[in-house]
Amino acid sequence: MTITITAFERSPDGGKGLARDTRVRWALEEVGQPYKVRLVSFHAMKEPAHLALHPFGQIPTYEEGDLALFETGAIVFHIAERHAGLLPDDANARARAITWMFAAVNTVEPPIIELGTARLLEGDKPWNKERLPLVEDRVRGRLHQLSARLSDADWLDGAFSAGDLMMVSVLLRLKSSGILDEFSNLTAYLARGEARPAYKRAFAAQLAVNTGKPTTE
Amino acid sequence: MTITITAFERSPDGGKGLARDTRVRWALEEVGQPYKVRLVSFHAMKEPAHLALHPFGQIPTYEEGDLALFETGAIVFHIAERHAGLLPDDANARARAITWMFAAVNTVEPPIIELGTARLLEGDKPWNKERLPLVEDRVRGRLHQLSARLSDADWLDGAFSAGDLMMVSVLLRLKSSGILDEFSNLTAYLARGEARPAYKRAFAAQLAVNTGKPTTE
Repeated sequence: MTITITAFERSPDGGKGLARDTRVRWALEEVGQPYKVRLVSFHAMKEPAHLALHPFGQIPTYEEGDLALFETGAIVFHIAERHAGLLPDDANARARAITWMFAAVNTVEPPIIELGTARLLEGDKPWNKERLPLVEDRVRGRLHQLSARLSDADWLDGAFSAGDLMMVSVLLRLKSSGILDEFSNLTAYLARGEARPAYKRAFAAQLAVNTGKPTTE
Repeated sequence: MTITITAFERSPDGGKGLARDTRVRWALEEVGQPYKVRLVSFHAMKEPAHLALHPFGQIPTYEEGDLALFETGAIVFHIAERHAGLLPDDANARARAITWMFAAVNTVEPPIIELGTARLLEGDKPWNKERLPLVEDRVRGRLHQLSARLSDADWLDGAFSAGDLMMVSVLLRLKSSGILDEFSNLTAYLARGEARPAYKRAFAAQLAVNTGKPTTE
């Protein structure tokens, strides 16, 4: 059955790969599943047809036969559960990899999103200059803990998993902030993620859309 | 094998059930699994022994034989995957229930956490009064979308699932804010969650800890 995902017709980041369709593309590339992409405009995302697919009016969505999913973490998990390559076979190791998926989106990402909000939506507010360091420190606190746990390992728990895919994707949002540079093992962790052939293919595919040179997918 | 979770020795909310161990207790009650609780002080949470179990120094954690997990969403999922009662049998319905688990923690909860942060950590800042309505509007935006999707249904997608357990738990954090009152179907949804016998048992168990009358668990 054909897999169809949605992505921004024009990503707000202009192709830096931070839109969440990149995470799903990456997962599909890791497990070797072909997919089609339907591009959605900002306007169409808030229309009933898209809202029926994604109640929060966002991308990506995932359609395969009569199954329709939204929410990146759930889509990546669905892909990881059905195809080899993103979750370990051992039951306990699998549960721990899933733990890192949730940790990425519920513990590490929220302060990073808050930092993005402070910069983008409150950048012109009178309090922003004084408040920004507080928000950055909350991000830094999480990174300290993540850095301590990762230590000198390549990945968070044994082999690369969907947990790493999600965590690397979350950390990528910090790339331009400079904060990650304070944690050399996290910078190296990010580089390892970006060096994976599957990530490169996913990144190239989203970039092609945003530079107006869509691939033939 | 005995299941042991961790909880606050003294919850910051004094027993309102908003600490995340309540979500795990609720899941265990729904599937009828007994569990033990190890109480952890704020000091001990940041010590190496607990950090080995939970790299972000939080509660709850989950131990069962040689398996150790952290991160509430992952623990609830682990419970739901192994015991009947929290995930539908049908593969597509199951994938959609998992979608709601991720939507609860990655789409609906982050602005709610941000509102909590604004109130608790930035309540004394000079910008707080002017900024709070902006943060509240971001919460409201998500609730509008959630309310539209729920419509007049009892639960988010068919029968009660781990997705509802997580979403109700996330919304409970808003109970004292007054914002939920603007959405009568969400208030009713919350009340349905709170009325479940399993939720009541979980709530009573955490309350007993915080009022100094621990149950015999």
